[in-house]
Amino acid sequence: MTDIQQLVHRYQKENLALPIWFEEGTLKVIDQTKLPFSEEVLTCATVEELGEAIRSMQIRGSGAIGICGAYGLYLATLVSDGDPESVKEAGALLKSTRPTAVNLMKTVDEMTASIEGAGQTLIRVMEAKAVEILERQLAFEYELGRHGADLIEDGDTVMTHCHSGALGGAGYGGRALSVIRTAHEQGKNIHVITCETRPYLQGARITAYELKKFGIPHTLITDNMSGFCMSTGRIDKVVVGSDRVSANGDLANKVGTYMHALAAKEHDIPFYTATSSHTIDFETPSGANIEVEMRDSSEVTHLKGIAIAPEGTNALYPSFDITPNALISGIITEKGVITAPYSTNLRKVNAQAADKVSQ
Amino acid sequence: MTDIQQLVHRYQKENLALPIWFEEGTLKVIDQTKLPFSEEVLTCATVEELGEAIRSMQIRGSGAIGICGAYGLYLATLVSDGDPESVKEAGALLKSTRPTAVNLMKTVDEMTASIEGAGQTLIRVMEAKAVEILERQLAFEYELGRHGADLIEDGDTVMTHCHSGALGGAGYGGRALSVIRTAHEQGKNIHVITCETRPYLQGARITAYELKKFGIPHTLITDNMSGFCMSTGRIDKVVVGSDRVSANGDLANKVGTYMHALAAKEHDIPFYTATSSHTIDFETPSGANIEVEMRDSSEVTHLKGIAIAPEGTNALYPSFDITPNALISGIITEKGVITAPYSTNLRKVNAQAADKVSQ
Repeated sequence: MTDIQQLVHRYQKENLALPIWFEEGTLKVIDQTKLPFSEEVLTCATVEELGEAIRSMQIRGSGAIGICGAYGLYLATLVSDGDPESVKEAGALLKSTRPTAVNLMKTVDEMTASIEGAGQTLIRVMEAKAVEILERQLAFEYELGRHGADLIEDGDTVMTHCHSGALGGAGYGGRALSVIRTAHEQGKNIHVITCETRPYLQGARITAYELKKFGIPHTLITDNMSGFCMSTGRIDKVVVGSDRVSANGDLANKVGTYMHALAAKEHDIPFYTATSSHTIDFETPSGANIEVEMRDSSEVTHLKGIAIAPEGTNALYPSFDITPNALISGIITEKGVITAPYSTNLRKVNAQAADKVSQ
Repeated sequence: MTDIQQLVHRYQKENLALPIWFEEGTLKVIDQTKLPFSEEVLTCATVEELGEAIRSMQIRGSGAIGICGAYGLYLATLVSDGDPESVKEAGALLKSTRPTAVNLMKTVDEMTASIEGAGQTLIRVMEAKAVEILERQLAFEYELGRHGADLIEDGDTVMTHCHSGALGGAGYGGRALSVIRTAHEQGKNIHVITCETRPYLQGARITAYELKKFGIPHTLITDNMSGFCMSTGRIDKVVVGSDRVSANGDLANKVGTYMHALAAKEHDIPFYTATSSHTIDFETPSGANIEVEMRDSSEVTHLKGIAIAPEGTNALYPSFDITPNALISGIITEKGVITAPYSTNLRKVNAQAADKVSQ
């Protein structure tokens, strides 16, 4: 049994929710667009098929996409029987599927760099590198979870928004859910409130699916109920993921995050974001410099292809919003929890000796 | 042609969105549960059938339910050929369909009081009273709209939540939409942002339907996007309806209202509620004294009968939330716009000589 196959046993032992794994010479991918109604597994026998799965969002989330770069290039090596040129071409193909996915670029580059000097042992070298990347990603989630769980107390009800979980990462808990899962596994008696996250319902569909899989007690609400829940003492902490953190600690995350943060501030409820230290974008001074992508508004007027508004209704779909740093109690990373003043403290963490952890 | 039939012509002339009307000896009711996908009209030939339409929420909204009391008892009079006992029984039946609907109680009582001394002219008397109630309700909407429209400026984008419109009232615009419609008819160039209002989607379904019918430009958003829209300068005013206003001006309204109000405060955007002076509840000192009804949580886990979360997911459905008076810029009533300090100013309005306007 090769190293990459042995990983599957670890996955089972640790009850990981795998977004992607290697099995009998092919890649298996959980189709996230079908969850939670069916757990369909795609088989990708070629890098082209994997690229299509990435492009169609069947596999998504920065951590998971990073693993695609590693596993995809190992697959390319196997399929081409160790031909370096084929591997490089596969790397270019994967990069083109999500040109803004920093993690995918990084892992493809890391895999490609391993080609030099590998010679006849290329397959073995590429396998070892892919395993290393996966293990590093998992270590990131455990570390992040450990730091974040220190903030969660026994008896807490923790609210989260959107999906920042295992299937978007390496299978343990991604970002926000690594914090929640670690607290739960430490034996703390916690309850999770998951916001459905309109319009795409990632919270109702995927976060609820993972919480159920991990056995963590939870309750679903619509996004507009968090204010009510906070004002009636039903929420103790908020932990969300992050699409991007600017140099001053402003947070770009799934639309709705900002309103939860405003309500949390009003009720003195700690509001945290879980992110990777590598996601902090020092090139962007503040949230005002982040352009919010407007997406296809038919996601708002239709649900699962069914119209929920009169025909021809005009709609708006900003994919995320900006939460100002003043509303954020702490930024949880794999290196620790960073608190205000963020402009200073984020740079301090960045200046720490680079470690092997990345996401 | 009788007076009650002549009303239909007025409805057409004024482009009213009628929740209920009289036609050839029967009541016609727009089935609000089917909107906006089909405009189904129920025919109620008996008070029993009308009671069933109320019970199943096919007709809803405090104003519309009040009209049911008036029209229902006129129908009972017709059907029983002027038998006073039948009319009284019909009144008791209607009251039992929505025991907490104050407006329904009031109009049934007013109709019943007309029985005494009517003698042989009962049918004629009951018709006149039903027409009077309808006209009073319409006058209320025009008055409320006029006071509220004074707050709306040319070029404003006005956000609303849930449905507080024509089909819940007498057909002009109910409460919040009377304000918006009047401003529009005054020639002000306004745009409306309607929040979809999860879980029941009243904003996407019914408010968008009425705005389209009245020709008022509008855009649909999900409830969690109002913060983004406010922070990017897309919203100038907020006008919502009201389930109940307590003696100190705290507002109970459809869940999500509170979060919009918090965001509006953060961005110095005026936040108004439109209500009837008769809805102000002086028996309830503050919002803390209002018990929030928890409804069937399957509305959250299912949409149009389709599951949107894993099977067995636990959910919460508070039907409304409480917006503290400090977040409210003004309370729009048919008597004028009331501003802080509410505890004093609401009582002043209440003490004004009772007029004929009610809802």
